[in-house]
This record gives sequence, structure tokens and C-alpha cells, in this order.
Amino acid sequence: MMGLTAAKLPGLNSFYTFPEYRRLHVGVQKRITEVTDDLSVRSRALSGTSEPRRGVAPDKMSDHAVFTRDKVLTIHSMNPTVKKVEYAVRGPIVQRAVQIEQELRQGVKKPFTEVIKANIGDAQAMGQQPITFFRQVLALCSYPELLKDNMFPEDAKNRAKRILQACGGSSIGSYSASQGIDCVRQDVAHYIESRDGGVPCDPDNIYLTTGASDGIVTMLKLLVCGEGPTRTGVMISIPQYPLYSAALAELAAVQINYYLNEDKCWSMDVSELERSLEAARKYCNPKALCVINPGNPTGQVQSRQCIEDVIRFAAKENLFLMADEVYQDNVYADSCQFHSFKKVLFEMGPQYSDTVELASFHSTSKCYMGECGFRGGYMEVINMDPEVKAQLNKLVSVRLCPPVPGQALMDLVVNPPKPGEPSYNNFKKERTDTLKLLAEKAKLTEDILNTVPGITCNPVQGAMYSFPKISLPGRAIKEAMALGQVPDMFYCMKLLEETGICLVPGSGFGQIEGTYHFRMTILPPTDKLKILLAKVKEFHEKFTKQYS
Amino acid sequence: MMGLTAAKLPGLNSFYTFPEYRRLHVGVQKRITEVTDDLSVRSRALSGTSEPRRGVAPDKMSDHAVFTRDKVLTIHSMNPTVKKVEYAVRGPIVQRAVQIEQELRQGVKKPFTEVIKANIGDAQAMGQQPITFFRQVLALCSYPELLKDNMFPEDAKNRAKRILQACGGSSIGSYSASQGIDCVRQDVAHYIESRDGGVPCDPDNIYLTTGASDGIVTMLKLLVCGEGPTRTGVMISIPQYPLYSAALAELAAVQINYYLNEDKCWSMDVSELERSLEAARKYCNPKALCVINPGNPTGQVQSRQCIEDVIRFAAKENLFLMADEVYQDNVYADSCQFHSFKKVLFEMGPQYSDTVELASFHSTSKCYMGECGFRGGYMEVINMDPEVKAQLNKLVSVRLCPPVPGQALMDLVVNPPKPGEPSYNNFKKERTDTLKLLAEKAKLTEDILNTVPGITCNPVQGAMYSFPKISLPGRAIKEAMALGQVPDMFYCMKLLEETGICLVPGSGFGQIEGTYHFRMTILPPTDKLKILLAKVKEFHEKFTKQYS
Repeated sequence: MMGLTAAKLPGLNSFYTFPEYRRLHVGVQKRITEVTDDLSVRSRALSGTSEPRRGVAPDKMSDHAVFTRDKVLTIHSMNPTVKKVEYAVRGPIVQRAVQIEQELRQGVKKPFTEVIKANIGDAQAMGQQPITFFRQVLALCSYPELLKDNMFPEDAKNRAKRILQACGGSSIGSYSASQGIDCVRQDVAHYIESRDGGVPCDPDNIYLTTGASDGIVTMLKLLVCGEGPTRTGVMISIPQYPLYSAALAELAAVQINYYLNEDKCWSMDVSELERSLEAARKYCNPKALCVINPGNPTGQVQSRQCIEDVIRFAAKENLFLMADEVYQDNVYADSCQFHSFKKVLFEMGPQYSDTVELASFHSTSKCYMGECGFRGGYMEVINMDPEVKAQLNKLVSVRLCPPVPGQALMDLVVNPPKPGEPSYNNFKKERTDTLKLLAEKAKLTEDILNTVPGITCNPVQGAMYSFPKISLPGRAIKEAMALGQVPDMFYCMKLLEETGICLVPGSGFGQIEGTYHFRMTILPPTDKLKILLAKVKEFHEKFTKQYS
Repeated sequence: MMGLTAAKLPGLNSFYTFPEYRRLHVGVQKRITEVTDDLSVRSRALSGTSEPRRGVAPDKMSDHAVFTRDKVLTIHSMNPTVKKVEYAVRGPIVQRAVQIEQELRQGVKKPFTEVIKANIGDAQAMGQQPITFFRQVLALCSYPELLKDNMFPEDAKNRAKRILQACGGSSIGSYSASQGIDCVRQDVAHYIESRDGGVPCDPDNIYLTTGASDGIVTMLKLLVCGEGPTRTGVMISIPQYPLYSAALAELAAVQINYYLNEDKCWSMDVSELERSLEAARKYCNPKALCVINPGNPTGQVQSRQCIEDVIRFAAKENLFLMADEVYQDNVYADSCQFHSFKKVLFEMGPQYSDTVELASFHSTSKCYMGECGFRGGYMEVINMDPEVKAQLNKLVSVRLCPPVPGQALMDLVVNPPKPGEPSYNNFKKERTDTLKLLAEKAKLTEDILNTVPGITCNPVQGAMYSFPKISLPGRAIKEAMALGQVPDMFYCMKLLEETGICLVPGSGFGQIEGTYHFRMTILPPTDKLKILLAKVKEFHEKFTKQYS
């Protein structure tokens, strides 16, 4: 970038018509980009005066004079950490998919009639039906007049009454306590105790959240401090769910990558954790280790042994553990079982369970519920310093409370109908059917993808995604580079344009350099999923041929 | 603080039993506070080794040895900007109120039988009834089986169908677009156009939010950058709603105070804005000006002239305007009218409306709706740089979407039943009754408080709060100081302990030094509000006598 100074700029302290000014301004702006990101310096340069940040007073302008003020908020003057944020799951490929949908509606001819979105774990958008009981209770809470009606089962009414009684003025329109409604937090605690075979859970350690993302960002916010080589580093898996990288970028924390082992079904190796940590200690202060289990985007379910190893590693290296367990009910492989970090921690004895700091996260958005739109979730904190906890309580109070309908839904998830209650059988059937269907689609996805030469796919043991490795011909890579595109983005964009299928390139999640992947959800209805997989297969073969 | 070094610390690199260790550790921790806030340095000092951040490896410990690891996340190692956050509306006084409620339930004898919370604008918790139509539509959206029923009016059903059709898979359990559901944003745009007498509104400038707080924090996040004397400064009114100071503290932005003129019914004086800005330019880079109208905590409604002056000031001084207009329907005084910043901006002609950057905020939580629990809101941005807008779109995509039930509710607020529709008359009656009652309570509050010697109260022209000035006797101020308490916190705590009334001290909102206030909501039911005001009167007289 050239070292441009104010003296070299054309005199901008005279009036221009607006289009003229804009043209000139844009040109100037381009040239002075990167000279400085500080608006004050820039506007002084533009106006050629030493008076900082003053526009021309409009009341001193004639009626025909046009206002020449710079914008306050520009790409140069805005928060630089926000600029560094990336979120591939809703990135450029999804924006293009939305455009294509509009084009289809406008009658633009395409080689397909419909965009199939397999980019995001949005179950109900893909046709998954909500659990009847949950929605009945939510309707009753929303409009309590319905409690007088005979159309709802008694257990749904009782559940609604219990939630309403816990709300100010018996209304879900009131703010709740910032940490969440007391009785919901109690129910969450009971759920965790029962899930973890009796390991005690204190409702005071439960924080209801606006989806799991909110809890994760809040915890990271508490952890980050320091500057330069003492800046907080946070270890995240690669591939990762890009909420983590986005939050760390925004907080200007250091992202420390550890790689999952694709050859061993995306397992976590402690030796890789050690390598990663060792390297990071040279340039930052690593303080936390994040694990997603079952894995997103990778679909693996970590073994109990692996979790124990990770906890031992965190204890030894003095790391705060964050366990993202939002897919805890999404386990399909017969050989796999979900083990919560908390349960394993407590089974390891008091030298671990009394000391290792752990935050774990759950959500209403995934599993058999798929209630993404309600933004419900919870976080449990273990061994958190009481002074920090007081700070956490203060911090969550600023946003007043998580959405109360989402809290109500979280309550239903952790306290569903029990055997003997009127809604139990139907609830059980709905849950079982949904999970069975997901398991079938997980297997279908894995099986079909593995028939494609140049695509290799690990078993989808859990969660809602497949993250297959794709071989891209050298010529495709070259062409992508020439276009300034990451090769797997080039691939996915072509796939979208030619077939209407929207996947997310592996580069949005991170991958070992020189390897390429995509993430696809297993959520489309079976018939659509089959079409999708057949199209991917056909496309991949064609693409490989075309660029070989 | 004494200059303590590692050499002066007792040797901590041997084992202690856990209680011993804790005792010792706490003592040491106290002494080394402020020597450094950096855990790595501190743990090196504690362990007496040069190896940073390593605990004693547990697998090298005997079965009986106790783990001596420091906590990763402590008050010293945590994010220092979070520590600076304060939020009085849910601060210590409210925590004490909750404790007192528990004590009452446990049978502890008090000079009162009930805590009356007038600390937060939580209408439905204080008995305000939700709008029937809104809740009917929400119930229908939650459980669409109800659409088959004859118990709901046709317009409610049509509205629910329209919202559901706009959702993925026709379910409010799906994620929406991150900016919010398209048709809701269109309805918001129509509402704004009609509210502002035809000033055009582009749905693409509308962002649905998780309450207004979310939008305000997001905008501030975009604005903040720089270091030291170039750090972004944001002008906020004093008294202010403490979300602003909390968000600025967390972002490490510079809070620039401008004072509202209590003698002129909390009006904004441009001369005060000039003074405040001039002073701030010496130590930061002022970039934005926040206005709350109608005022929180001060209850004033700004005149059209005042808003025009403020816009002219912002234009002249190149400031980004943020207009918090969540109380836009809460105007009670006959002489007052709500004028949106946007409308006034556009009436001032293109040299303003084409250039001044404005973000304005609305919410489902206030006005006649009082639907706080749903966390619905919107933000409109005007004249935002397109590149910045792309960044904003990216930023909001990370949190996936605002709660969909809150979006649905926002839609109903901006698009309520119309004349001729089946629900119109009832809707109109409910809205009018609620606003009329609020107006009566505003007057009642002002009138009674002004009968108390030592309390002076401006008219509650709008919003939901009174912010009276209270005279505190010198001896009370001294006693408070001796206890390390801010005098109006001392006053409010005493009021709470003696009467069960929970107000928020003026110091939580900011006030001219040497003056004291409290904020109380006008929301309690009229009978309770009368008791509350009588008790405040009695308490204030007693307090004044006691400390004179």
C-alpha cells in the first residue's frame, strides 16, 4: 500500500454535487484504504483541515449546496474484530441459495426446480414434526383461556399451570429471573442427575440460555483477557462448528486449533492436544478447551475412554473445559453411547470432580425436538469460582432474561411425559420414530456417499451431519485459486448452481491443509435425501471428469 | 496496595489438604490482589517455579494427595471488562428483595407481608393483561391443530396462517432468516411508514432482534474501535438506562455523559451536548449519540423542536444517532406527542435525511403490550454504509435468529387487527384501557410524590417511570458514606427493609453529583400503587426526621 498523505489528496474542502462527491470519495477511499483504519485521521485528511471530525455545518450551506459529510460508520472505522468474524453455515453459499430461490420464483430457468438446503441443522424446516405434547403446553401457556377447554390432555394442562405459576403475574409475558425460571432450573437439575446416574446437580449451577450459542459466547466472554503473548487462547477442534471461531474472533481471543483424527473416525488424540497446546503456549495463554460431542460437523461420538483422557489432560494442563453436548440424544451407531463430560468427571473421583472447571451446554434445537426457533437452552457450570459466578450472574442480568417460551420448552424437554401419564405413549412414539428415522438417514447418507469414487465418508455415529472428504482434481484447484476461491467453495458453488443443492464447504469448519470436505445435514425427508445423494454422486463424477 | 513479590510468599509448592490449601490460598490471594490480574504470572508466583500455568500432574500424585491446582477462571484472571459492567435494575437491591421474599415465605417476621417490586418495567408481572388477539395467534402458531377449531376468530387464524407460511416447514420451530422473517420485516416497514406519515421504509433496513437490548448492543458493537485517545466514545444521557453503560463497559468503549435538564422536565439542551462533546474530544473519539425518548428512567417526552436540534447537532458534529424509542406508545401528557427521530429527520430535508446515520429501536416489551418474556424487537438502520450493513448481516447470522415467537409477536404489534376485522373492537378496547390506566397511574404517582416535603417529581409525560429527586439529610449521607454505600442506595435499602418496597437508587442511572433520586415504575395495580406511594411518603418523612 502506498504511503499516501493528506498533501497528495485533491482539495476536498470545497463543495461537490452528491454524485460527484461520491465518485471522488470512493476513489479516494480506495487509495487511502489501509493507510489508517481510524476515521478521525482519515476525515482530517479528506477535509484538509486540522479540526478533527467536523463536517460542514449544514445551516451554513445554501439550499442548493449538498452535504459533504463523511459517514461515521464505515468499513474502515468500524469495529475490526467484527470484521474478522466468519460464519460459514449462513455464509455466501447460503446467500446465493436464497437468491437462486428468488430467481426460480421469478421464472428463471435452471437445471432444477427446487433448492434443497442441507446446510443447516434446521430439522423442522426439513419437515420434522414437533412433539405434540410440547406444542400443546406452549399453546396453553400462550393463551391460558385454553386451560378451560377439554381438548387438551390433563398432563399438558398441569404442566402449563406449573410453568405459568412460576412466572410473574402467571404470564409468560413477564421477565423471568435472569438465570432462568427457578422451577425450570430445578427440572434441568433433576434431568442431569437422572441422565448421569445420580451424580448430584445443583439448580444454582444451571443457567437457562437463548439457545446453546448464547451460553457458549457468555462463557468465552468471561474467560478472555490479556494482551499480546498473555492473551487468552481457547482450544477448539478442527473441524469445528464456526460459532466458536466467530465468537473468538469477536472477542479477539486466540483460536488454538487441535485436529480431530479423520482416519480414526474423527476421534480426539491426547497427543494432538499436547502438540497443539505446546505450540500455542509460545504466543498466548491457553485457558480453555472446547469439545463438541457428538461432533459437529463431524458426526462422531467420543468414547468414554477418550473423554476421560481429555479430562485428565485438562486437569494436568489447567484448562477450563467447555463441553458442547447439544446432540446428546442424537446417537445412532449401535456401538456408541453418549457419555456426558460431567458424568465421566465425577466417576474419576474427587481429585477431578472437586477441581476441574467445566461448563456444558444443551439446547432445545437439536435431538428429537428440533425446536430451533424458540432459542431455548441451558448451561451447567461445575467448580466455578464463587466470585466469578457472581460476575456471571451480573452479566446475564444485563440481557434481562432468556426468551420465556424457550425456557418453557427447555422444561418440557428435561421433564417430558412420564409412563402412566395420558400423553406418554404418544410422546414416546413420536420421539422414537423421529430418532429412528434420523438413524436410517445417517446410515443412508454414509452408505451412498461411500459408493462415490473420490468421496470417503466416516460413519455418522451421531449428531445430524456427514462431513465427507472429497478429492478434487488439480485443475479444479487451480481454477478455483485463479478465481480467488477456496477449492471446496468453488466445488459447492458449482454444485449449487448445477443441482440446487446447498451444502457448506469444509473450509468453513476448518480442515487439514490440502484436504477438502463438505458438511451436509442428514435432515431432508428420505425421498429428498435420496435425490440429493444421487445428485451429489452424479455431480461429483461429472466434476472429476471435467477437471481431470 | 503493598508491593508484594513472589519471594515474600510462603512456599506453596508443597501439598496441603484441600481446606488448608483453600485457607492459605485465599489469604495469599487477598494479599496479591492487584499485584497482577494475570493468572499465568500469579500461578508462577504461587507455585514458585518458572514453569508457567502447570498444575501438579494428578497421575503423579498418591491416592491420598490432594490436588493443588489453582482455578483457571478467577476474579483475577477473568475478563476485566465484564467486571466493570453494572446493571442496577437487577442489582444488589433486587437481590435483597428476592431474599426478603424467601424470608417471608419461611415465616420470618417483617414490618410488612409482601415485597412490592417497582424496580423494573415488567408490566404483566404487575398484573397487566396481555392482548387477547396476540395470545390467540401465538397459541395457533404454537399448536396449528387449533386452526381446525372453531373457538378462534377468523382474523386470528388468518394471521397465524400467514406467519406459519413464512416459516420453514410452516413451523415456528424452524430457524428464521437471521435478519428476521421476511413478511414480518415488511409489516414493520409498513408500520413505520404509516406511523411517520408516509416517510418510506425499506424492509431491508429492518432487523428483528431479541428485545431492544440486543439491537442496541449489536449497534454499539459495530461502532466501537480504536485505543487510548482514539477509542470510540458514545454519548449517553444522564440519567440513563443502565443497559448503555453496561454495554459500553463490556465493549471497553468510552462513556460520554451528557446531562438532562431536570429543571426543564428532563429536556435535552444542545449547549449541554456541546459541552459534553467538547470535553470528551480531549480523551476519546466520540462517534455516536444515544437518545431515549420517551425517557427511561426520567419519563419525559422530547419535543419535536428538541429532536430537530439534536439531529442538527449530530449532523454538524458527525455523530451516529441511536434512538431508543421502545416507549413510543407510552405518552400520557396531553401536551406531548411522540415524534420519531426518523420522521423528524426526513422532514428536515435531504441534506439530513440522505446523510445522517440513524439506528432506532422498538420492542414488544413495553407500551400497551408489555410482552417482556418473548424478547421481541426490531431495529431500523438509516443511511448505513452498505459495506457495514454486510458486516451487520454477517454478525447477526452468528446467533442464527431472534426467537421466532418474539418475531411473531412483533408482527402482531405492528400489524394489529384492523377496523372491520372480528377482533378489532376487543383489541382496541384492551389497548385503550391499558394505556388509560397507565396514564392515570402516571398522574397519581406524580401528584402523590409531589405532596411529600423533600421529594420533587417531574411530570411523568411518558414511558413507565417516575424519577423524583429526594433530599437526604447530611447525617444520612454521612452514615451511608461510613458504611461505604452510595447515599441513595442506603435510602432505598432502608426503604426495602422497612416497607418491602423495591425501588432502584438514582445512582444506578447516573445523576448530577450531590443530587439523589430513585426510579419507580408506575406499573403496580392502582390499589397497590396507592399503598406504595403512601408508604414511600411515610418512610421519607420518618427518614428525614431520623437523620435531621
